Amino acid sequence: MTSELLTGIAELTTFDGPSPAASTRLTDAAIVVQEGRVAWIGSAGSAPAADVRTDLGGRAVLPGWVDCHTHLVFAGDRAAEFEARLAGRPYSAGGSATSVAATRAASDEALLAAARRLRAEALAGGTTTIETKTGYGLDVATETRLARVGRAVADSVTFLGAHLVPPGTDRRAYLDLVTGPMLTAVRPFVDAVDVFCETGAFDVDESREVLLAGRAAGLRLRVHGNQLGASGGVALAAELGAASVDHVNHVSAADLDALAGSGTTAVLLPAADLSTREPLAPARRLLDAGVPLAIASNCNPGSSFTTSVAFCVATAVLQQRLTVAEALWAATRGGAAVLGLQDAGAIRVGGPADLHVLDAPSAVHLVYRPGVPLTERVMVGGR
Amino acid sequence: MTSELLTGIAELTTFDGPSPAASTRLTDAAIVVQEGRVAWIGSAGSAPAADVRTDLGGRAVLPGWVDCHTHLVFAGDRAAEFEARLAGRPYSAGGSATSVAATRAASDEALLAAARRLRAEALAGGTTTIETKTGYGLDVATETRLARVGRAVADSVTFLGAHLVPPGTDRRAYLDLVTGPMLTAVRPFVDAVDVFCETGAFDVDESREVLLAGRAAGLRLRVHGNQLGASGGVALAAELGAASVDHVNHVSAADLDALAGSGTTAVLLPAADLSTREPLAPARRLLDAGVPLAIASNCNPGSSFTTSVAFCVATAVLQQRLTVAEALWAATRGGAAVLGLQDAGAIRVGGPADLHVLDAPSAVHLVYRPGVPLTERVMVGGR
Repeated sequence: MTSELLTGIAELTTFDGPSPAASTRLTDAAIVVQEGRVAWIGSAGSAPAADVRTDLGGRAVLPGWVDCHTHLVFAGDRAAEFEARLAGRPYSAGGSATSVAATRAASDEALLAAARRLRAEALAGGTTTIETKTGYGLDVATETRLARVGRAVADSVTFLGAHLVPPGTDRRAYLDLVTGPMLTAVRPFVDAVDVFCETGAFDVDESREVLLAGRAAGLRLRVHGNQLGASGGVALAAELGAASVDHVNHVSAADLDALAGSGTTAVLLPAADLSTREPLAPARRLLDAGVPLAIASNCNPGSSFTTSVAFCVATAVLQQRLTVAEALWAATRGGAAVLGLQDAGAIRVGGPADLHVLDAPSAVHLVYRPGVPLTERVMVGGR
Repeated sequence: MTSELLTGIAELTTFDGPSPAASTRLTDAAIVVQEGRVAWIGSAGSAPAADVRTDLGGRAVLPGWVDCHTHLVFAGDRAAEFEARLAGRPYSAGGSATSVAATRAASDEALLAAARRLRAEALAGGTTTIETKTGYGLDVATETRLARVGRAVADSVTFLGAHLVPPGTDRRAYLDLVTGPMLTAVRPFVDAVDVFCETGAFDVDESREVLLAGRAAGLRLRVHGNQLGASGGVALAAELGAASVDHVNHVSAADLDALAGSGTTAVLLPAADLSTREPLAPARRLLDAGVPLAIASNCNPGSSFTTSVAFCVATAVLQQRLTVAEALWAATRGGAAVLGLQDAGAIRVGGPADLHVLDAPSAVHLVYRPGVPLTERVMVGGR
């Protein structure tokens, strides 16, 4: 029942309003934390007494990142493949198949330890809420193991059995598996279903089938779409009112229209865009069309092996032309909306004390000082 | 006289050859450090005995960054101006004038303390050798103070009195000052002279005058050129055989030809390119034409407030299409060449033990994992 008063907050971004523009940015602020939740927010001069008083020394505080799109549970290293690909050299051993083989061969303990390392790294970078996916198992037993490990390290787990059809497997048989026994097996551990709706993975009709099976099982819907071209994933996500469509590098005017009216969030994954050298997703155009945005790391061993949401936010502002406030919102409240965690991504009285303290006087420094690790401390539930 | 054996080096990048391609990347390596210098390099299995043995636990080691272009000595904060500029809003108080006014008003102690903080931050990010410039004083007394403070925090200092003509000052009178009394006053503290050869700052003839005065005073030559357009800075640097031309965002075929034969290094400043939204410098085209490259942070409060060379290296690979080895070389040996510090930027027997240890098994991870702070420890002269 100890209460803690945090003072010395040069700038407090609460994101407690309905939009970045309508949100509060307080200067010279204070927060009282009690039982893991925010008990009071206001100006330092009018702060109430508390059991413990911590002076943050003129630092900026904002909500912890809500990283709504990662693939934390895998085994194997793909740095050599990455280097070769960026140098323009072919690399025959490459691709997700490497991760699938290594993941299937790894023990639960090894998978859990590796995922925990990434989770800890993300936390050290300011991420207080994180999602992860299955998808490197592609058989019932391994997908179930990944879902269980995911549940142990993440706040939200997404079933991505429909990542790709395993080589040598009949498409129809695999779809039946994903929408049947595999879905049933992972169901106790997952919150959402996702499908890789891209050329070479699953087409629109196949993707719809996967998503509808997930919906029937009570899961939220996610779509990997329009990363490598006009996959139809955006239109499908809009059609089904999915929680999100992720990647969205290639978006037509019709896609924009469909998305804007659907309530579906477009998830920007700038680190993946850079690592795959796809054009950066048209963030400004999406936002101007009224599409809600989220920003996530897409941490995975193939196309985006980073946990740094700060890097993604800086890229979204510097190169995708969001304002600082819009990008910060997308990486906090935007992610929370995708995951359906309405309590996350904001600092408000009664909400969780998930706080990101920067070694800087303003959250603008996250973009002003790209690459500099600015996270000074992170509180999750007040700890 | 204590010797230290470093083992557990999963990958050792020495850059002891004449080019990235001809350099050694050892696996399972060891290094012996004695009296601050590298005494032995080889495979772990054949390492000699030493007084102290340190196991780096399967990490990658590479030379510390040589950051050959920064502006560390200034006062004042320009985060609000930065945010407004990136949001497309005008900001009347903006520009270098803000920094000049704040810098002139700051005490030597305040300037030194602020520069030391940035120097420490750079070191924590792997930078073992750093240059800084004057240029926020623009009068004899302040430029001399900046040069002296620069000397106290950096390994190399560049005189940039010719940053801009101070508002309200006669151009001709200012050029006479920069090439006369100001140059004389700063001379004991500086190694090079630099000029901002850009529209709105100094034209080619003015720039030549500044550089020739510096050369007559025994200084190395640097040029800020072709950042905002075809300033003629690249051609001037080539004409005079300058050590470097920095920025080079806008380069014609003729510029390329001139540069390739000159021995002048082109310094890439990717963080500045992103923060100003100029097109990224054509690194691949420069290198393919035979132009030596360096990569630097350009740390400064206006256009690139970062000390992260790792961020710059990642950008150069992901977006400017250098290979990982080419970018790492440019940020180590490339910078050393610009500064004329032939001992820096490589790990070789007899050279300084300036080592960058990564919390990763390969230096490729600096690009593979953008935004993740991977520096595990840094040794400068063996400490």
